[in-house]
Amino acid sequence: MFLNYRVILNILGILLIMNGAFMFLCLPFSIFYGEGDLLSILGAGLLTLAIGLIIFFLTRKNQVKELKKRDGYLVVSLGWLTMSFFGSLPYIFSGTIPDLTNAFFETISGFSTTGATILTDIESVHKGILFWRSLTQWIGGMGIIVLTVAILPFLGIGGMQLFVAEAPGISPDKLQPRIKETAKRLWMIYLGLTIGETVLLWLGGMTFYDAINHALTTMATGGFSTKNASIAFYTSPFIQYVIIAFMFLAGTNFTMTYFALHGEFKKVFQNDEFKFYMAFCVVLTLVVAVGIYLLGGPVEESFRTAAFQVVSVITTTGYITADYTSWTSFITLLFFMMMFFGASAGSTAGGVKIVRHIILVKNSFLELKRQLHPNAVIPVRFNGRAVSREITFNILAFMMIYIMIFGVGSAVMGALGADFNTSVGSVATCLGNIGPGLGSVGPVDNFASISSGGKWLLSFLMLLGRLELFTVLILFSPYFWKTN
Amino acid sequence: MFLNYRVILNILGILLIMNGAFMFLCLPFSIFYGEGDLLSILGAGLLTLAIGLIIFFLTRKNQVKELKKRDGYLVVSLGWLTMSFFGSLPYIFSGTIPDLTNAFFETISGFSTTGATILTDIESVHKGILFWRSLTQWIGGMGIIVLTVAILPFLGIGGMQLFVAEAPGISPDKLQPRIKETAKRLWMIYLGLTIGETVLLWLGGMTFYDAINHALTTMATGGFSTKNASIAFYTSPFIQYVIIAFMFLAGTNFTMTYFALHGEFKKVFQNDEFKFYMAFCVVLTLVVAVGIYLLGGPVEESFRTAAFQVVSVITTTGYITADYTSWTSFITLLFFMMMFFGASAGSTAGGVKIVRHIILVKNSFLELKRQLHPNAVIPVRFNGRAVSREITFNILAFMMIYIMIFGVGSAVMGALGADFNTSVGSVATCLGNIGPGLGSVGPVDNFASISSGGKWLLSFLMLLGRLELFTVLILFSPYFWKTN
Repeated sequence: MFLNYRVILNILGILLIMNGAFMFLCLPFSIFYGEGDLLSILGAGLLTLAIGLIIFFLTRKNQVKELKKRDGYLVVSLGWLTMSFFGSLPYIFSGTIPDLTNAFFETISGFSTTGATILTDIESVHKGILFWRSLTQWIGGMGIIVLTVAILPFLGIGGMQLFVAEAPGISPDKLQPRIKETAKRLWMIYLGLTIGETVLLWLGGMTFYDAINHALTTMATGGFSTKNASIAFYTSPFIQYVIIAFMFLAGTNFTMTYFALHGEFKKVFQNDEFKFYMAFCVVLTLVVAVGIYLLGGPVEESFRTAAFQVVSVITTTGYITADYTSWTSFITLLFFMMMFFGASAGSTAGGVKIVRHIILVKNSFLELKRQLHPNAVIPVRFNGRAVSREITFNILAFMMIYIMIFGVGSAVMGALGADFNTSVGSVATCLGNIGPGLGSVGPVDNFASISSGGKWLLSFLMLLGRLELFTVLILFSPYFWKTN
Repeated sequence: MFLNYRVILNILGILLIMNGAFMFLCLPFSIFYGEGDLLSILGAGLLTLAIGLIIFFLTRKNQVKELKKRDGYLVVSLGWLTMSFFGSLPYIFSGTIPDLTNAFFETISGFSTTGATILTDIESVHKGILFWRSLTQWIGGMGIIVLTVAILPFLGIGGMQLFVAEAPGISPDKLQPRIKETAKRLWMIYLGLTIGETVLLWLGGMTFYDAINHALTTMATGGFSTKNASIAFYTSPFIQYVIIAFMFLAGTNFTMTYFALHGEFKKVFQNDEFKFYMAFCVVLTLVVAVGIYLLGGPVEESFRTAAFQVVSVITTTGYITADYTSWTSFITLLFFMMMFFGASAGSTAGGVKIVRHIILVKNSFLELKRQLHPNAVIPVRFNGRAVSREITFNILAFMMIYIMIFGVGSAVMGALGADFNTSVGSVATCLGNIGPGLGSVGPVDNFASISSGGKWLLSFLMLLGRLELFTVLILFSPYFWKTN
């Protein structure tokens, strides 16, 4: 058979089983707070689990063991989509978000670690459901780790090979046997940091419930908050600094964190992507801080507010403590541009990723050199190694497609009635998996007012962005469906 | 010697001599209208001519005959710059625009065929000076033709090779001997169309003076008008349709016009770029026309207004008959996106050019195919031929650099105090050599309110855009100044 439908379905079955099991994790909170969402969650969990088990057992036999590349694209895209459809059941069953459009938007915003929300009063949502909302982001982050380590390099998604070359214990030619080990290590870091942040936030004065929710969504660079005002609810500088630090860690290549934990700081500070990531955060924080300070903000608060917003957008988390569109036009523009940054590959951050920007900028300079020396082979160098022309080419194509999708998406949002800033802002933020945008989807607003068609488009863009474009787009190309 | 300074200076001398001679073409109008600008123009012309002659004669001897590639970049950039500095003398001498910043902005806006203006009352400017203003665009257009045919392919600027492969009488391996012939043919078309449009506009009811001025700036895709209201001054549908047609022709690859004039229509309609150029104009006109119609416009007027604005922006002319930012947010967004189109290579249009977009879009689709077949060689095809990977790569890099410059430029404009829409609009329109932008530099406004620093930045961007980025940027790279 052309595609291994049996294996694909089997994997989707496994994902649904996991999805159902994760829903049960919300039950303790439902029981503890007793707000009446217990049965909805239980029902959604059991239904998801049951369907997962049925699919799993029906497709268990006669499997072709090896997954082919085409199967890979399909299973990843369908996996995220299936998770999101079933993940919206708790919202629908509990009546929190009764219609599919909004429930699906909220769920895919979770699993894609975007953080755009249609909820207008988050604090009125029952605690069990709200925990599910945070958990979808954390699960999405886990998915991204395994995707980056194990699947994207195998599918040949531009730039991801560069990350893999750096991952601990992976040599490009001996990839397969070590993948499991690597994924496990990175998951441990992910889990460890989540626990660490929970404890720190708890110590900082959050309730345990709020602490764990925010830790889950920080580490996923997701940005869902349990408060209507997002982190602006917490005026404690300690809490804000803790979150800044953990957002930064969540946007750091987990491999670098692994090195740091093993005392290999030299490796961390020699990593090109980490250096630029830090430089971007520091420089942009200072620029924005000066801007806020000049508008009359106190020194420390200006710095903290700037750092929070900058790190939040660059890491594609999307928490806010202040409205970045309320200062100057220049700062608004800067934040809009930051939506195209993305943090490190190998982290849970979405968006373009800094490694790609480094390659693109270096390549632009070298293209000038190539004009003068048309016969010389002048490769881009990254982490001291020459990057192959194929990878550079692929990254260029990735960026072009990213921009085209941004352009076409903005035009469609405009045609659906959104104003200029809302159109470009909503598309940039959803495609980049950030959360808040500009205009009527700015930091202090939400996506409730977006038209139904707009919500489906943005849902699709969140998926596209999260799966590095190619994984999804390829399914829409005729090449994918041709037999040879 | 490393660079042939002597030859470079000699060529600059020749350009100044021509520049001075062109200024004398304004004298008949100065005399006829007798508004007192005669001595200023005469003085500017004589000074330019004299300095040109001195440079020319001082550098005439001991020349190395052959120009090298590096000399090419330098002579083109310095040529445009020198012409613009001396071209601002008539404005300064006559007191029309007394300060250098504004005079230089207006002149480079002319020579780069952009059409952005700092004049707040165009109709009060003396007729001789105003003719010079139009003439700078026409000279710029002439320069672009020779640049595209003779110089850019030799410098290896991305995508331009594709055009040359199509030019009549040019075979890539036997380029040199035919260049003069090709340039002459295209200049004849340029001149012929200018005369033709002058006659038609005159017949349509313009004064001879206005007719020739508008013909000069239409064919250059420049967009300077002699009226404050631009073409909105002329309510005659005939005049508007004539200008639409000639803008379209000015944005058509002149080689295609050459073929058409020789009855070879098949070649024209088989040309990929021409097909897409037409398709863009038609489709976007219809979309915008429907938008205007729905707002209550009469059918014919909606169509005409839409066609005028669409063709004006796509061809990077920049005339207006209506404010495209005054309809719906969606249409504003569309026009903003059109600023990144540019018309055909081998025309006088600025901007990115459609040939590049075709390659980029086709390559994006093929990149999906390449993901599935990583070992296959899958080239982009243009006009039935495979485009080399080097050219495709170079076009990708061009587009990346274009977008980066747009981003950085917008941020700097924002830092200089412009609001969001003005920042992105002014940079997009100047880099694309269009004219009107968004916000406070929208179609019914002008660039007078831009800060001094902003004007110099935009002047630089006009030059960058006009000279296909690389020609200018390469001078700022260390590679250019290294001896080996």
